[in-house]
Amino acid sequence: MQFADRLKNVETSAIRELFKLLGKPGIISFAGGFPDPALFDVDGIRESSNAVLTNNPGPVLQYGATEGFQPLREGISAFMAHKGATVSPEGLIVTTGSQQALDLIGKTMISPGDKVIVEAPTFLATIQCFRLYGAQLIGAPIDADGVDVDKLEQLIDEHKPKLVYLIPTFGNPSGATLSLERRKRILEIAVRTQTLIVEDDPYGELYFDQAPPPSLLALSDEVPGSRDWLAHCGSFSKILSPGLRVGWLIAPPALLANATMCKQFSDAHTSNLTQAICAHYLTLNRLEGALAVVRKTYADRARVMAESLRRELGSAIAFTQPQGGMFFWANLTGAEGQPCHAPEFAKRAIDKGVAFVPGAPFFAHDPDLSTFRLSFATADVAKIEEGIGRLGQAL
Amino acid sequence: MQFADRLKNVETSAIRELFKLLGKPGIISFAGGFPDPALFDVDGIRESSNAVLTNNPGPVLQYGATEGFQPLREGISAFMAHKGATVSPEGLIVTTGSQQALDLIGKTMISPGDKVIVEAPTFLATIQCFRLYGAQLIGAPIDADGVDVDKLEQLIDEHKPKLVYLIPTFGNPSGATLSLERRKRILEIAVRTQTLIVEDDPYGELYFDQAPPPSLLALSDEVPGSRDWLAHCGSFSKILSPGLRVGWLIAPPALLANATMCKQFSDAHTSNLTQAICAHYLTLNRLEGALAVVRKTYADRARVMAESLRRELGSAIAFTQPQGGMFFWANLTGAEGQPCHAPEFAKRAIDKGVAFVPGAPFFAHDPDLSTFRLSFATADVAKIEEGIGRLGQAL
Repeated sequence: MQFADRLKNVETSAIRELFKLLGKPGIISFAGGFPDPALFDVDGIRESSNAVLTNNPGPVLQYGATEGFQPLREGISAFMAHKGATVSPEGLIVTTGSQQALDLIGKTMISPGDKVIVEAPTFLATIQCFRLYGAQLIGAPIDADGVDVDKLEQLIDEHKPKLVYLIPTFGNPSGATLSLERRKRILEIAVRTQTLIVEDDPYGELYFDQAPPPSLLALSDEVPGSRDWLAHCGSFSKILSPGLRVGWLIAPPALLANATMCKQFSDAHTSNLTQAICAHYLTLNRLEGALAVVRKTYADRARVMAESLRRELGSAIAFTQPQGGMFFWANLTGAEGQPCHAPEFAKRAIDKGVAFVPGAPFFAHDPDLSTFRLSFATADVAKIEEGIGRLGQAL
Repeated sequence: MQFADRLKNVETSAIRELFKLLGKPGIISFAGGFPDPALFDVDGIRESSNAVLTNNPGPVLQYGATEGFQPLREGISAFMAHKGATVSPEGLIVTTGSQQALDLIGKTMISPGDKVIVEAPTFLATIQCFRLYGAQLIGAPIDADGVDVDKLEQLIDEHKPKLVYLIPTFGNPSGATLSLERRKRILEIAVRTQTLIVEDDPYGELYFDQAPPPSLLALSDEVPGSRDWLAHCGSFSKILSPGLRVGWLIAPPALLANATMCKQFSDAHTSNLTQAICAHYLTLNRLEGALAVVRKTYADRARVMAESLRRELGSAIAFTQPQGGMFFWANLTGAEGQPCHAPEFAKRAIDKGVAFVPGAPFFAHDPDLSTFRLSFATADVAKIEEGIGRLGQAL
């Protein structure tokens, strides 16, 4: 059987290799990108499911509009307003998780050979998703304040990309947050160069002490014309439940209309039941309370992980402590004869009973083999201390 | 903003025009392809939702495997066995409705310019879905026994298509059912020509009096080698609820693995909650009872629609009475000065307060403008009599 040419652009063996490592019994895993299921508001979700299947079963179980279940579009509009961004219910579509929002952007925008700029490093599934549509990816360097804007501007001018994909807040895998000043400059660059910026924002609500800078979407009101060059992907996966598979895409009208058409032939629409559950849940006034618990829990875990890393690994690694999200991004310094090859280190860590993800697959090209990602979201404080202790032994 | 080239292959205005017609108040619609929501087993679905959110909330609300929720894969395997087809849980993946199964086949198989043979007429969303991947579609003629197999074989030999897409049982829009003899011949042709056959089977359970011939999948055991060239799409949409968005894809291992990879970057996985609901529902032993009601109801409606059509429109139209499914496919005969242009007839019908779908958009090329589709699934018997009466007035 001869498959489509687009499959030749994608290499998934690195990912498969990662996940093969996780099967060992007794392993403490910092490898995943999953939220902690113990923090799911199961009662609120069950109450919502019961309510919508009792009060409104017909529309919830019937085919629905490709754009999304209207009460949820209204609920997301209000949720975004609460986060400082103005978007009408008609200015967004509901997607089957924000992964589908990325897929629809790829399907709608990318012709084979088109250039796309991403952060180096960036979200693994975005790299593969866009490559399936034939994108040629170009990595823009980052630091603790997010993407290097001067370098990004140079790359845009040089390559005239179809779009720029960024995770500005608590990035995956970087943990970095783009500064307010850089956010504004990126919007100005978008307008000047007429370049679509895709803001992926799954983690923005997972802040520890203080809220992050406003999203590019919220800031676009301050930069005339920038809204015309901005798409924004959001998700309930990290704030309510990933198993529901409900996300959203906010975009300029022509892009949104084309993405809707592509969605019609991708999956017709996102489950009405899970959409209705999310819509009802938003009316229960439980989200802020649930998020407060998540923020406090993840903040504690991040603090303990940072302390443990400093204690157990000292100068062997360098990292910037994240202010939210789910990830530490670190690199082996190679100081004093310490290791500097993360894939090798990952294998030794597995032998000691602890798993993490080497950083190489997060780079679209020119991987930094000294880097790796640690998630603090799923292991509790005691497991984190034990796991980082094992990591120290693996050194 | 410059969109991807693939969007140029798709023309959706015909569909939009259709649905604009339906907004008029008091209209009786035979236009949709929706099941009757009054027949949904709401109690069984609510019971299932409660059960899975009570007994197993963690995995149900967490990220899951791209291949599908394992208890559902096992449930679908058993369901297919009940329908005479042998498939292991690992031989199928769960998809976000069978529309996504089609999308994944397109993404996995079709390079721009590849030829794909479909029935003329065929499912509208398949035409658009495959065109978005650059397929060049070729229509194979059908009659009351489904696709003309001699002609199909000629077309395969001539065009060497990437795949052949068929709805063998109670086709949409044709209502036709492929004969047992033709089914076997198609499997033999697939083996001889090494051509992938995609069997879409959303309607097979909706039979009136007797079960249709076995699916191509079930028959593949009798034709050595044919299973290697056969993919099968199934769905809970017409037998349980379309709002859940749960379907499945059965395919040879290499195709299934590539489709799974494509799905990973399309939506990560289908909602675990709706998958778990389907899996639990299958254990309740309610499906056969619910289906018995659906079959009886649709059979009555189809009978009344046939009687009314003969009474009210007489020689002005020709049609074959379907033995299951949801659709009549008819054509204006033009006899004795009667109309023969279905789009024009559709407009006059709307003026009289009844809607149906002209057949032209269901053809990949060379549309037959005398054809049209009537759904008998959602209007009750009284509305069908009244609606067909209005259709008679529109003549």
